[in-house]
Amino acid sequence: MSDATVDYRPMWRELGMDLEAHDPLLAAIPQLYADAYLNQKDRPEGMAYFDFVMSEIHGLRIKELQDHRAAGGTVIGTFCVYVPEEIIRALGGLSVGLCAGAEWAYDQVEHLLPRTTCALVKSAMGFKLGRVCPYVESADLVVGETTCDGKKKAYELFGELAPVYVMELPQMKRPQDLELWRGELDRLVAKLEEISGRTLTFEALQRATKEVNDKRRALQRLNAARAATPLPISGKDALLAVQVAFYDDVPRFTQMVNAIAAELEQRVAEGRGVAPASAPRVLVTGSPMSIPNWKVHDLVEKAGGVVVAEELCTGSRYYEKLVAEDATTVEGLLDDIAEKYLDINCACFTPNPGRIDDVLRLAEEHAADGILHYALQFCAPYQIEATSVERAAEKARLPVLRVDTDYSMEDVGQLGTRIEAFLEMLAH
Amino acid sequence: MSDATVDYRPMWRELGMDLEAHDPLLAAIPQLYADAYLNQKDRPEGMAYFDFVMSEIHGLRIKELQDHRAAGGTVIGTFCVYVPEEIIRALGGLSVGLCAGAEWAYDQVEHLLPRTTCALVKSAMGFKLGRVCPYVESADLVVGETTCDGKKKAYELFGELAPVYVMELPQMKRPQDLELWRGELDRLVAKLEEISGRTLTFEALQRATKEVNDKRRALQRLNAARAATPLPISGKDALLAVQVAFYDDVPRFTQMVNAIAAELEQRVAEGRGVAPASAPRVLVTGSPMSIPNWKVHDLVEKAGGVVVAEELCTGSRYYEKLVAEDATTVEGLLDDIAEKYLDINCACFTPNPGRIDDVLRLAEEHAADGILHYALQFCAPYQIEATSVERAAEKARLPVLRVDTDYSMEDVGQLGTRIEAFLEMLAH
Repeated sequence: MSDATVDYRPMWRELGMDLEAHDPLLAAIPQLYADAYLNQKDRPEGMAYFDFVMSEIHGLRIKELQDHRAAGGTVIGTFCVYVPEEIIRALGGLSVGLCAGAEWAYDQVEHLLPRTTCALVKSAMGFKLGRVCPYVESADLVVGETTCDGKKKAYELFGELAPVYVMELPQMKRPQDLELWRGELDRLVAKLEEISGRTLTFEALQRATKEVNDKRRALQRLNAARAATPLPISGKDALLAVQVAFYDDVPRFTQMVNAIAAELEQRVAEGRGVAPASAPRVLVTGSPMSIPNWKVHDLVEKAGGVVVAEELCTGSRYYEKLVAEDATTVEGLLDDIAEKYLDINCACFTPNPGRIDDVLRLAEEHAADGILHYALQFCAPYQIEATSVERAAEKARLPVLRVDTDYSMEDVGQLGTRIEAFLEMLAH
Repeated sequence: MSDATVDYRPMWRELGMDLEAHDPLLAAIPQLYADAYLNQKDRPEGMAYFDFVMSEIHGLRIKELQDHRAAGGTVIGTFCVYVPEEIIRALGGLSVGLCAGAEWAYDQVEHLLPRTTCALVKSAMGFKLGRVCPYVESADLVVGETTCDGKKKAYELFGELAPVYVMELPQMKRPQDLELWRGELDRLVAKLEEISGRTLTFEALQRATKEVNDKRRALQRLNAARAATPLPISGKDALLAVQVAFYDDVPRFTQMVNAIAAELEQRVAEGRGVAPASAPRVLVTGSPMSIPNWKVHDLVEKAGGVVVAEELCTGSRYYEKLVAEDATTVEGLLDDIAEKYLDINCACFTPNPGRIDDVLRLAEEHAADGILHYALQFCAPYQIEATSVERAAEKARLPVLRVDTDYSMEDVGQLGTRIEAFLEMLAH
């Protein structure tokens, strides 16, 4: 899918990738993408940027990462919204989300991890074992976290395959937890200073904070347009924007997303949509969705519904909260970063009432008719919290469909039938 | 199974239990116990105490708990070795492990928790939903912890059925984690002071520390005898002692276990065992085993092997480490309690090299021929850590059998076959 004029194979070879395995993987993406994305009617023109990004997903962006490293910068791989991109950037790093959205090398993975591990963790391990993810192969360091049992324990084994540093995310949000978490930022700074050979400065951290906030503001603006009826952009396209946010160049991404947002605002003013005003409006909440995991959105939208918001790590949890920008010292900025990140409402916290509030608020803001609770199989935090979300939603008279699934396509038929029935119910 | 002269039904009714469901449950235990325990040849005479305890498991001990409450004391339910019994006792509480060892009311449980939740958590929830555990019905408070995703999130729902207080166990063991954990003890003290109406004193905490240490010392002594060949007590009996330690009266239990230990020391001196000296010696490590979960031990020992040690929460993790007794202030004692508990090597920590060391050390001390890694299905921490345990054991030339199972008896045939093959290999 890469530009015909550029041969990235020498670069991939240099990264130690398994080209024989990577070729068919990369060849499969255009078809997947075309099926899910390119057949959509009346897409915003600005989405052409994401078509390009996807066509260069293992190409141009990887080349940029190599150029960045050649110029003395670092590449830091992450799997989670809790790893502060501001700090990485301020120390000359580029933060990239690692491949974790498709089944790969599960036969090898299941020698290390139980079969009953969630697809996200198995996929991440599979892409590394199979040497087919150029992002992880480009990473000077992978920064993990203790958000769930699966990731926490899998990082121990992942650390034998790649350089891994784990941050301890606390499990509650009290002052003493914020204190522990604030200390984790100091330790991350020390670790990144060590591998980058740089020293954190106020100016660099302030600039990075502003840049990452701008990225979040652009996504907020794009997503605000999804409150409109008819919907000016498909849920799938909006999801893709957040998925790409994890690894794209920050200022360029911000600019492109702002352009799309402007286009959407124009559409809203004109009452122009990608689906009829009568299309049932669904809010999706639950486990993260990594590229190319578009399964649920695709099923909803092909069945005539529209996804109007994602209360996901690849959704509102990624962009809704900003870091305060008025601190005047490094310490002050780090305090604000610690506070903002701990304020994200992941199901790894106990209790986690903030997520319920977020779901209900987003449902209201986006005029959702119903809620699709999506959990990866074996993702205990989201699967168990689904019970509380369902109760709260039903109290608010919002119907809920619970979908527990993985990355395989085996359940697509059955899932599609359930989703169709749910949409039909919402339409009445 | 209760003494024919005592009718406990009025007590159970007063506790709000479902007698119609409880009668058949309680009626099933004697048969289970007889099959696993009473057919064993040449058991230590002291085990008669445990036969009695088991015959009164929902009877006399529950009566004692009610008498204790009537006299102004409290009953505190727990599911985990990290909840400090010293503090509970020092504030007039009796610490009791809650029912979590058998399948019960899973149909109701699966309305709240995913089917893919470990048996321990499902069982605990089922016993509560079904109102058939007199321990939880006697509890003034259940003290939970954040040891795994399953428990952490299930406590949120459990808290709607019973009064629950959750302690945050950190996920690493660095100084800052000890600090957080130390603070958790202060908060637990405050919570228990509130519900008991008492104030923690140095004398009470010192006495409780000594009593609980004495219990651990007795178990250490009993288990030390299991280093001998031939083995003077079955693994099943030794496991039962630790299982009962979670809820029995502390001084009585200590006295009885010391008596058994003395008997075992006599047996060792005489070279008398419960199995031939040639019986393959197995160390069991992994997830906890609650009463009446004797499945793995039963299979090993009925197949001609012996279990010589348990690196389990219902094993060495429960009794190996003592709290220092020389502190002269409440604060000092709490510091020592915090340190001792954080030093337990549960798979919930990352990394957790201490557990590997414990397994290898115990295997050596108890002359184990092989290791049986036992994990409850969907118990991600132990299932994933099994890979590291297996590698370390194999490096030490200790064969490993990995068993992932639950509380059903459906896999007993297949498991038995695998265990027989493993023992046969160890014998050669």
